[in-house]
Amino acid sequence: MSADTSGGGEPRLVGLPDVRAAAGRIEGRVVRTPLVPATWAPGLWLKPECLQPTGAFKLRGALNAVSRLAPERRAAGVVTHSSGNHAQALARAAREAGATAVVVMPVGSPDVKVEATRREGAEVVLVDVAERLTTAERLAAERNLTLVPPFDDADVIAGQGTVGLEVVEDLPDVATVLVPVGGGGLASGVAAAVRALSPRTRVVGVEPELAGEVAEGLRLGHRVQWTTERTGRTVADGVRTGPSELTWAHLEALVDDVVTVSEAAILEAMRLVVLQGRLVCEPSGAVAPAAVTSGLVDARAGPVVAVVSGGNVDPDLLAAVVRGERS
Amino acid sequence: MSADTSGGGEPRLVGLPDVRAAAGRIEGRVVRTPLVPATWAPGLWLKPECLQPTGAFKLRGALNAVSRLAPERRAAGVVTHSSGNHAQALARAAREAGATAVVVMPVGSPDVKVEATRREGAEVVLVDVAERLTTAERLAAERNLTLVPPFDDADVIAGQGTVGLEVVEDLPDVATVLVPVGGGGLASGVAAAVRALSPRTRVVGVEPELAGEVAEGLRLGHRVQWTTERTGRTVADGVRTGPSELTWAHLEALVDDVVTVSEAAILEAMRLVVLQGRLVCEPSGAVAPAAVTSGLVDARAGPVVAVVSGGNVDPDLLAAVVRGERS
Repeated sequence: MSADTSGGGEPRLVGLPDVRAAAGRIEGRVVRTPLVPATWAPGLWLKPECLQPTGAFKLRGALNAVSRLAPERRAAGVVTHSSGNHAQALARAAREAGATAVVVMPVGSPDVKVEATRREGAEVVLVDVAERLTTAERLAAERNLTLVPPFDDADVIAGQGTVGLEVVEDLPDVATVLVPVGGGGLASGVAAAVRALSPRTRVVGVEPELAGEVAEGLRLGHRVQWTTERTGRTVADGVRTGPSELTWAHLEALVDDVVTVSEAAILEAMRLVVLQGRLVCEPSGAVAPAAVTSGLVDARAGPVVAVVSGGNVDPDLLAAVVRGERS
Repeated sequence: MSADTSGGGEPRLVGLPDVRAAAGRIEGRVVRTPLVPATWAPGLWLKPECLQPTGAFKLRGALNAVSRLAPERRAAGVVTHSSGNHAQALARAAREAGATAVVVMPVGSPDVKVEATRREGAEVVLVDVAERLTTAERLAAERNLTLVPPFDDADVIAGQGTVGLEVVEDLPDVATVLVPVGGGGLASGVAAAVRALSPRTRVVGVEPELAGEVAEGLRLGHRVQWTTERTGRTVADGVRTGPSELTWAHLEALVDDVVTVSEAAILEAMRLVVLQGRLVCEPSGAVAPAAVTSGLVDARAGPVVAVVSGGNVDPDLLAAVVRGERS
């Protein structure tokens, strides 16, 4: 399940064969999302991962990771720690495989997320936010469950990479692929696929300025981690996390650039994606298109694809953005 | 352009070869929309035509009709009367073909629709609502333009039918296809394709109770027309029109049933499509899924596809529905 870091060397990076194998495993179990032209920005296409059954790309990685388990490990069940889109994704992937899933969430998680995870059949364990990881590890040991982390896992990364495979398949002359960066699983997988399939295509990560750990790290030449207090200020709750060693190694090696966008740009892009793209996206899902709407990336210079990573948004925030009350 | 009704006999119905030819003409110019599982209703799939560049399926028919024009007719330009999704669709289809488009709209049409049509490059002519058709016909004669009506046209119907082609291609064992019915162009085309490709599949039209002309007509055995005053009461502004002779002939011959849904069911379905399907749909776009959410059609009995026909919705209405202020 985890990356090969034995011997203390550099972790092995996910490659195109891993992503292709993942695509075969998840075929027919995720929505083959189309590219949708963003009419407000000629040259920009959206990849609407918000249309996945759990509302986010995370289902790809979770399905691949669960499929990769040996039958006896799968039968024993899985566990993870997440209050976000990975929670529902793993719960669904486990349910489809006939496996039990335990999801450790911080006390105070929105009811809507707890309920959605339970609806997918998972057992939810609520703990203090500081005890999330240790609780998940303890449950894994006690109940013989396999820990499937949200991004720090080669199989999860390979699954997310199928997004990149589809982008190049649908638009072979794509000049730039824009991917939101939180923990970096999506960007790592997409970069692995796109660099191998289309070396001329640039893969650019996009972060909120308020959670710009990877942009700063690349500038400094080493991985940095911001406090959750600091990254918690961005409205884009799905990308408040920083990279792991494994995803950092991918990002450093495979991503052409990482740019940052303001909170205003994220909310403006969200309004456009909703009203003109007719896609419900959460703030994190608007981070990548925000790089175009804010002028950082020029889609007229060659076709640009922005991954709309998810659509699990609080109804009140959605309504406020649509009405222009929040910007 | 128009159906063959010469000799006063029954109009020739659009057939599978017409729809297949249309599919070839519009390929790569419309979004190949996927089927998206409706997680709140097991067995129900959505066909999100709201993701087309003009926000509705209408682009299919308009592109096909413009493609079918002889080069000299195309060069002369096109005209239509529509305040809705056909206006933008024809404007865009003409622009892509390098042709001029004139759209006759009633005075008082929402600015957002007038502007959207102008943005697609059309000349908008505003007239009193009663003079729409005569003005379009007069302009056609005076300026040598070809009239491309919103639904009363075999090429338009064949273009809309490509939706049905894709549904059967993606889900060959589909038991029922639900299609919203206004003028009946979409339902006619979809029925023509689906009946030919998959005789076991039922094609069911869905109307608002407040605009239930086709349901009533089928009960009475002849086409009926309700006043615009009467149909104007439904929130689903895209399906306030009644069928033409041509679409009626298709509906009578090819559609298995037409059911009606309440205003409350339409708004509830819209809320589900937006918040759980993550698709922005207009009220008319929620009419077909409303047949399932209101219990008229059981998706558990076999897979059901509901066409989400469009997503051009007033932001205030969208926000109100999302917040549960409008139901």
